[in-house]
Amino acid sequence: MDNSNPEALITAALNWRYAVKKFDPKRRITAAQWDVLQQSLVLAPSSYGLQPWKFIVVSSDEKKNQLPEACWGQRQPADCSHFVVIAARRKADPDFVKHFIRSIAETRGLAEESLQSTADAILGKLQRMGDDHLPWTARQCYIPLGFLLQSAALLQIDACPMEGIMPDRIDPLLGLQDTEWTSVVACALGYRAADDPAAQQARVRFPASETVVHL
Amino acid sequence: MDNSNPEALITAALNWRYAVKKFDPKRRITAAQWDVLQQSLVLAPSSYGLQPWKFIVVSSDEKKNQLPEACWGQRQPADCSHFVVIAARRKADPDFVKHFIRSIAETRGLAEESLQSTADAILGKLQRMGDDHLPWTARQCYIPLGFLLQSAALLQIDACPMEGIMPDRIDPLLGLQDTEWTSVVACALGYRAADDPAAQQARVRFPASETVVHL
Repeated sequence: MDNSNPEALITAALNWRYAVKKFDPKRRITAAQWDVLQQSLVLAPSSYGLQPWKFIVVSSDEKKNQLPEACWGQRQPADCSHFVVIAARRKADPDFVKHFIRSIAETRGLAEESLQSTADAILGKLQRMGDDHLPWTARQCYIPLGFLLQSAALLQIDACPMEGIMPDRIDPLLGLQDTEWTSVVACALGYRAADDPAAQQARVRFPASETVVHL
Repeated sequence: MDNSNPEALITAALNWRYAVKKFDPKRRITAAQWDVLQQSLVLAPSSYGLQPWKFIVVSSDEKKNQLPEACWGQRQPADCSHFVVIAARRKADPDFVKHFIRSIAETRGLAEESLQSTADAILGKLQRMGDDHLPWTARQCYIPLGFLLQSAALLQIDACPMEGIMPDRIDPLLGLQDTEWTSVVACALGYRAADDPAAQQARVRFPASETVVHL
């Protein structure tokens, strides 16, 4: 991988990554690497900056071994190094918005009252959504997923993004039952097994001439 | 920006980026830079690899100037260099799935019939969704958005992700009316104006102790 210019680094990473089917259970992500991956999640943007998400990071063997049965039997959650579940807030209620406004005020040294128009804009959008905010909060969760996947590839850490998690089964394992949060999407991170069959498969993409339109 | 190791490059990029409010309308992304950004979109992963998206890239002044009125009057679509709209497929109908299966077969030199179990898995999932696939296809669109934003930051290209687009107004401008595709989310790309007020604002994030749970 050529680190001498970011263009080459990015292109190499995009072409290096693939969705790992079989992880090497013995190899672990280091604490320093995890720190960069966690920053990629935490610093990812969201609509209004609202961050209607939580990141549940499972790295203990005991807990990881409980996960396959909540993931249609897939082995990646158990065999990877770090399994990240991104959970969305079911409802961005006024208390949550207030908490966010307070966070802006504290970070920027402003009075909360000076942010009323921001609060009103967010609350107005949420009100127009009705009671079910999950379709919108769940979308937001895919932004940090993208950042996480690309950071992992840049660090040559393998990954497998997974929608195949059963919220009803995995939420209790993650301590999310009876909370405002529910699992949306996940990502296994670690290192491919030497015999991962998916490593040999050619990448499939529609040609850019079909998916990209220039105006 | 320190290019000597990817950890430092990523951390610097994550902290460098912010949502630009005011672009410099005179500065343009080069063709070589755009190529890397486009690869970041095209090579981003999606559930099953189905890619239920199109990327509409607006870089002509004439077309960009038509966009603010379809974006709540925001100026970023007109003043940026490249405005990318990510559109989702309203319905991933059996013809689209067949087209995808054919793409796998051609890329990997397989008989389409050998991919029947893959086709059945996708069709089964879609059938369980009912007629409205947009809540799911729209989520997928946020993955390439994440890749695009992070690649831009790594290249020190400014960006502003935008949900504030009106599909009913922007779709006709993009040639999406009466098609299977509808605009979901967008991203303005280019360079910040010297007097962009947003550049001075401290980044607001909940502390990791609140959003990250380790198990």
